[in-house]
Amino acid sequence: MNNEQSTSQEKETPTLKNDLLLRAARGETVERPPVWLMRQAGRILPQYRELRASLSGFKELVETPELACEVTIQPIDELGVDAAIIFSDILVVPEVMGLRYEMIPGKGPMFPMTIQLEEDVDKLIAGEKAAVQLDYVYKAIRLTKTALNGRVPLIGFAGAPWTIMAYMLEGSGSKTFSKARRFLYKKPISSHVLLQKITETTIDYLHGQIKAGADLVQIFDSWAGILTPEQYKTYALPYIRQICDAITEVPVTVFAKNAWFALPEIGQLNCNVVGIDWNTTPQEARRLVGESKTLQGNLDPCLLYAPEDTICATTHQMVRDFGDKYICNLGHGVYPDTPLDNVKIFVDAVKSFTFE
Amino acid sequence: MNNEQSTSQEKETPTLKNDLLLRAARGETVERPPVWLMRQAGRILPQYRELRASLSGFKELVETPELACEVTIQPIDELGVDAAIIFSDILVVPEVMGLRYEMIPGKGPMFPMTIQLEEDVDKLIAGEKAAVQLDYVYKAIRLTKTALNGRVPLIGFAGAPWTIMAYMLEGSGSKTFSKARRFLYKKPISSHVLLQKITETTIDYLHGQIKAGADLVQIFDSWAGILTPEQYKTYALPYIRQICDAITEVPVTVFAKNAWFALPEIGQLNCNVVGIDWNTTPQEARRLVGESKTLQGNLDPCLLYAPEDTICATTHQMVRDFGDKYICNLGHGVYPDTPLDNVKIFVDAVKSFTFE
Repeated sequence: MNNEQSTSQEKETPTLKNDLLLRAARGETVERPPVWLMRQAGRILPQYRELRASLSGFKELVETPELACEVTIQPIDELGVDAAIIFSDILVVPEVMGLRYEMIPGKGPMFPMTIQLEEDVDKLIAGEKAAVQLDYVYKAIRLTKTALNGRVPLIGFAGAPWTIMAYMLEGSGSKTFSKARRFLYKKPISSHVLLQKITETTIDYLHGQIKAGADLVQIFDSWAGILTPEQYKTYALPYIRQICDAITEVPVTVFAKNAWFALPEIGQLNCNVVGIDWNTTPQEARRLVGESKTLQGNLDPCLLYAPEDTICATTHQMVRDFGDKYICNLGHGVYPDTPLDNVKIFVDAVKSFTFE
Repeated sequence: MNNEQSTSQEKETPTLKNDLLLRAARGETVERPPVWLMRQAGRILPQYRELRASLSGFKELVETPELACEVTIQPIDELGVDAAIIFSDILVVPEVMGLRYEMIPGKGPMFPMTIQLEEDVDKLIAGEKAAVQLDYVYKAIRLTKTALNGRVPLIGFAGAPWTIMAYMLEGSGSKTFSKARRFLYKKPISSHVLLQKITETTIDYLHGQIKAGADLVQIFDSWAGILTPEQYKTYALPYIRQICDAITEVPVTVFAKNAWFALPEIGQLNCNVVGIDWNTTPQEARRLVGESKTLQGNLDPCLLYAPEDTICATTHQMVRDFGDKYICNLGHGVYPDTPLDNVKIFVDAVKSFTFE
């Protein structure tokens, strides 16, 4: 459990005016739950769409620190959420390891080259030598911290090793990631070598983000739910565990989407917060994770298309059901076409909540 | 619980030489678990690919009883599985209700027209008037029963009402089915009207299949896992319950993919068999469903890319872990590029199994 930030960082950065997220992450009692949304910096905001339309593509936004900073701040101004999350993509990690990605509009990520053979794994760059190339992310974080001037904490993030491996093998998004899962069955030793390389790169990358000013880091295991419980124990958890054990400076959140079967094990990791998707009730999530962690989630993103009173009532019920040790969020990223007014209704519903 | 077939049907059809599936479905003690594969009639078989290549498209195969019969029988000859499942598609139901579908090669189903407004729901045809148009399926079942001549039982099937509704609103496959789920939040009353119409059509359709000779029927709730537990209780379960209560002639299997959260409620339905996906261990599945049902599943389809000894060892372990009241299958449809030899290794591994 990482209950203290390094004192050196505290000296460099201004005191946080709103530290609700960090106090909730550390399990402290808070006056109301903090609230932010996964994908809050993105297409739901007209400011984002305007800027994005003026650029060559998604990657220009990710790779230009000044622009990444600008869109990271937008939801703080527009929505009044309690945290910023640095605008970036989990696929920057495979890229600096040697597999360049492209973001195809309307289709998602594509990798012109993928891992096919055991030899391909050996060729990948790993650790500090890869992570140092992500200097543009560190610079974006430093700029954002200055621009935020302590208004809210800044969240850094990375993909979990299994999810990154899945993209490296599949070469794109997929319903089943069957190429990636096939590799686990056919090349178990090589799979572990690859996962270890990703893990070491991710640890160095997250340390770089924290050094630049990230106040909390979240590990996204977006494709956790396509593994069997047995595979998750073998190929996913040990590597997330290494990351959690290595990050001692700031709180860590682990969000393994659709991996309800692994929540008891995730509850034993050396992390502070566990993300919950919308397939699990708050009560069941608490039962599975245990008492020690703060939970984060889990409103169905589709609820934000509902009428105002449904949004408010469902959000309040969720906040009550989660109770203590809780960070309010959706159970997945906000859908790009969600009406902005409804996102605001959600945020305001949480901010007006008081424990009775 | 539907433990007896109608005597009128027994008179018409030859006695089953292999009734392992039906005995296991009814919870009787069997010498070894029956085995079949979801999507066993399909692209894994060279015979299928050859026939399919000679046709105008997928729908010609579905709508021509002689051809549907031919491909239904192919895996019985080639793989030696313990059941046939009629070759068809769950989307024939929305089609006869008024929404024609197309099957786009490499992309999946597409509906040129979808449900957009409450008025669209009112226009749909439902019940017997719709189901009678599926005469080509009933004819395919009659032909198949004659061709099988009692070798193995024949499984009929339909989509669960929520899954059919999801396609009717979304118009195609989708990762999130956010248009369909949005409708649930925005138009709850109209959603129930639509689900009731689909349910009545499905009941008539399944009765038609049983009258034609189906020995067991399976309800596929393929998109169960994208609903919240609360939505599943409101919009999915009550309609599956109506179907289970209406089908009294033959055993019923309910397979709600990724809906681990609803397994306790599914365990209370008036069905005989509960399908299990590969995200759940056999032990956890039994704990969630309870003792009364036969379980079916749940091998990861990707395991069939593994080396022979891994396939055999994992299959045997799964069969041992499930124990009594069990039908062996994958946790999802077999992937089209699975090596045929590996499918045979899986089937033979089950058939050589004996309870110690």
